[in-house]
Amino acid sequence: MDYTAKLDAALQRLHDEDRYRTFIDIERERGNFPHAVWTRPDGEKTPVTVWCGNDYLGMGQHPKVLGAMHEAVDATGAGSGGTRNISGTTVYHKRLEAEIADLHGKEGALVFSSAYIANDATLSTLPQLFPGLIIYSDALNHASMIEGIRRNGGAKRIFRHNDLAHLRELLAADDPAAPKLIAFESVYSMDGDFGPIKEICDLADEFNALTYLDEVHAVGMYGPRGGGVAERDGLMHRIDIINGTLGKAFGVFGGYIAASVKMCDAVRSYAPGFIFTTSIPPAVAAGAAASIAHLKTDTALREAHQTQAKILKTRLKGMGLPIIDHGSHIVPLIVGDPKHTKMMSDMLLEAYGIYVQPINFPTVPRGTERLRFTPSPVHGAKEMDGLIAALDALWSHCALNRAELAG
Amino acid sequence: MDYTAKLDAALQRLHDEDRYRTFIDIERERGNFPHAVWTRPDGEKTPVTVWCGNDYLGMGQHPKVLGAMHEAVDATGAGSGGTRNISGTTVYHKRLEAEIADLHGKEGALVFSSAYIANDATLSTLPQLFPGLIIYSDALNHASMIEGIRRNGGAKRIFRHNDLAHLRELLAADDPAAPKLIAFESVYSMDGDFGPIKEICDLADEFNALTYLDEVHAVGMYGPRGGGVAERDGLMHRIDIINGTLGKAFGVFGGYIAASVKMCDAVRSYAPGFIFTTSIPPAVAAGAAASIAHLKTDTALREAHQTQAKILKTRLKGMGLPIIDHGSHIVPLIVGDPKHTKMMSDMLLEAYGIYVQPINFPTVPRGTERLRFTPSPVHGAKEMDGLIAALDALWSHCALNRAELAG
Ligand SMILES: Cc1ncc(COP(=O)(O)O)c(C=O)c1O
Ligand SMILES: Cc1ncc(COP(=O)(O)O)c(C=O)c1O
Repeated sequence: MDYTAKLDAALQRLHDEDRYRTFIDIERERGNFPHAVWTRPDGEKTPVTVWCGNDYLGMGQHPKVLGAMHEAVDATGAGSGGTRNISGTTVYHKRLEAEIADLHGKEGALVFSSAYIANDATLSTLPQLFPGLIIYSDALNHASMIEGIRRNGGAKRIFRHNDLAHLRELLAADDPAAPKLIAFESVYSMDGDFGPIKEICDLADEFNALTYLDEVHAVGMYGPRGGGVAERDGLMHRIDIINGTLGKAFGVFGGYIAASVKMCDAVRSYAPGFIFTTSIPPAVAAGAAASIAHLKTDTALREAHQTQAKILKTRLKGMGLPIIDHGSHIVPLIVGDPKHTKMMSDMLLEAYGIYVQPINFPTVPRGTERLRFTPSPVHGAKEMDGLIAALDALWSHCALNRAELAG
Repeated sequence: MDYTAKLDAALQRLHDEDRYRTFIDIERERGNFPHAVWTRPDGEKTPVTVWCGNDYLGMGQHPKVLGAMHEAVDATGAGSGGTRNISGTTVYHKRLEAEIADLHGKEGALVFSSAYIANDATLSTLPQLFPGLIIYSDALNHASMIEGIRRNGGAKRIFRHNDLAHLRELLAADDPAAPKLIAFESVYSMDGDFGPIKEICDLADEFNALTYLDEVHAVGMYGPRGGGVAERDGLMHRIDIINGTLGKAFGVFGGYIAASVKMCDAVRSYAPGFIFTTSIPPAVAAGAAASIAHLKTDTALREAHQTQAKILKTRLKGMGLPIIDHGSHIVPLIVGDPKHTKMMSDMLLEAYGIYVQPINFPTVPRGTERLRFTPSPVHGAKEMDGLIAALDALWSHCALNRAELAG
């Protein structure tokens, strides 16, 4: 057994498929988002504009957030020093969970190290709480949900993306007495399309199923108080478990679920991914709580965000570039193969100081490789003009198709 | 299907077994460790001394660590704004990984959201890199390793805790050509005993197996530069993958593996738990890097830590209390049933302002429920005297046995 040869082979597979990932070293400048410093492999530093971050609203530089973090570091130090059960629960964690529960109109909330682990730990623990549970999972659910659903080998059914007829068919085929859960997302992050929340809740009612909604790409950004698409549509009370992140629109780090007190208590008590790990630093909890609290009232920021997305999409469409537009804040520009996508990304960075990472398989299906832009309130007219001009020039240069590939 | 009834039943099981966990709300005071504020459920605040934290060296209040965090928040904001691949790699992350690689004498390192997810993601990805991999796992390995090993249903063999003969037997029984990995810990956190690193490496050589060592409860604390027990024993070069945390002795948050460049590159490229999640905040990375760098030279702190543990163990033994002593820094005091353990913990907190969480099944085997003390350089003579007096009084009060239960 030659272990090195096996590693070489695994890496070569990625190179062969042009999907070996190179991390770009990007450091944003506080107070000056979306501007950042790119440190090249040789150590040289170049100013760039970030167009692919998930700090959608620029909250990562908000004075209230940073103030709360500084204050907590001064008051209580760096880390929590323990797991939630063993000395790692603080007023910061409790306040954050109360803030989240209030955001989603739920009795309780549980904070995890990330929304990834919140999905993974919760979905893999539910079959223990509801023996015989069947999980119905949208085909385009995020990797973290897939991992959680697969983990313990429980029963699962995959329904075609947003296909209600297929979901109904699967639900109807199973034992009416079996416990059931439908897991889906409100905004699918790579296409930016919405899940049919109301219709899925109706099906859940009809078949007595629980609902599990990942609002990772919606919390902070949709709904009157930033509660997500389910809040916007008046549907939060119909979702049993809402999953969200503190690392995207809220600009900090960590993830959570919001649900009934009993559901939270059971997950808290049974999920190894919640129990056996150091809790997030008090300063991170403090920053996240400040961000959520702020966004409960800052409707203007949410509106500015949507406006920016609309402007960018309108301008890209005007140039005939093949973007996907489902009316959300995410702007995917389809290139269609991994080599061209990487080349476009490299040229934008090198020649124009524009940073947008190529998105390849397995994050998106092969043949739909893309550049995924995330316009935000911190992207001004100057940045927008620069991006448009660069894309126009490059698209011509590469002789890429200007027809729409997707709706 | 009555979902609420199922939740009630799951929670009742824990109450029935006296192992329902109540989180105690504890906030440490920066500059004044191990002193902390306990917020009671009714909101009243009481000063307490923390005796069960895993910030073993008090680095969570070290000025260098806090300074680095403040500086990074000021320079670059709250969160990273993305996954490692999509805008979430910064000089802070790269510097941290270089610091870790250097600590362990490895070519590379990968930072994860926690050591939990580092174990889980790495161990569940290795079978993909080495098809047919058989993992030999110590029976007392941490939950995060167990979860990782179980996740994808790969081949596994459980060897009795620290039992080299059993491990040899299992290795010998398998196909010599099959890829193999031995996963174990250097310090087992609940008993404080050591894994036989050298002997396991010898077996790995003999059977051409890879070695995977969790040094979570050793990094920062053992070895001339804090590289862990493998460094202390001159064995780091014989371990293929070293796992560690940034949340215990280093006092911050996050976890990692250190390994060859190729191994890191392959795990980085294939592990969903590394790829599909927001990277740790730059400020957390900066604080952790400062902590590691400091502990590479602060031998005095490491020695003070060991001295404190020795003093506490000597005094508890002197009183005839049943502690476990394997020569490490962890001081488990066996109570032996969950009810008494919880009662002791409650009385210490209420009457003496001493916080030590009860440790119950499944964290430890039934019948070995315990109080687990973690003396540190920030616990002075006054705190130590207070603890000894309280335990002496309580042990008499509860008429508990003073014979040694374990060696
Ligand atoms: C042996 C062991 N490995 C891994 C972990 C996980 O570390 P982290 O808290 O960084 O997730 C822990 C405890 O938390 C542990 O005790
Ligand atoms: C839909 C979805 N769910 C969950 C996650 C995980 O969130 P986090 O970054 O907090 O782990 C992500 C992305 O990171 C995501 O896109």
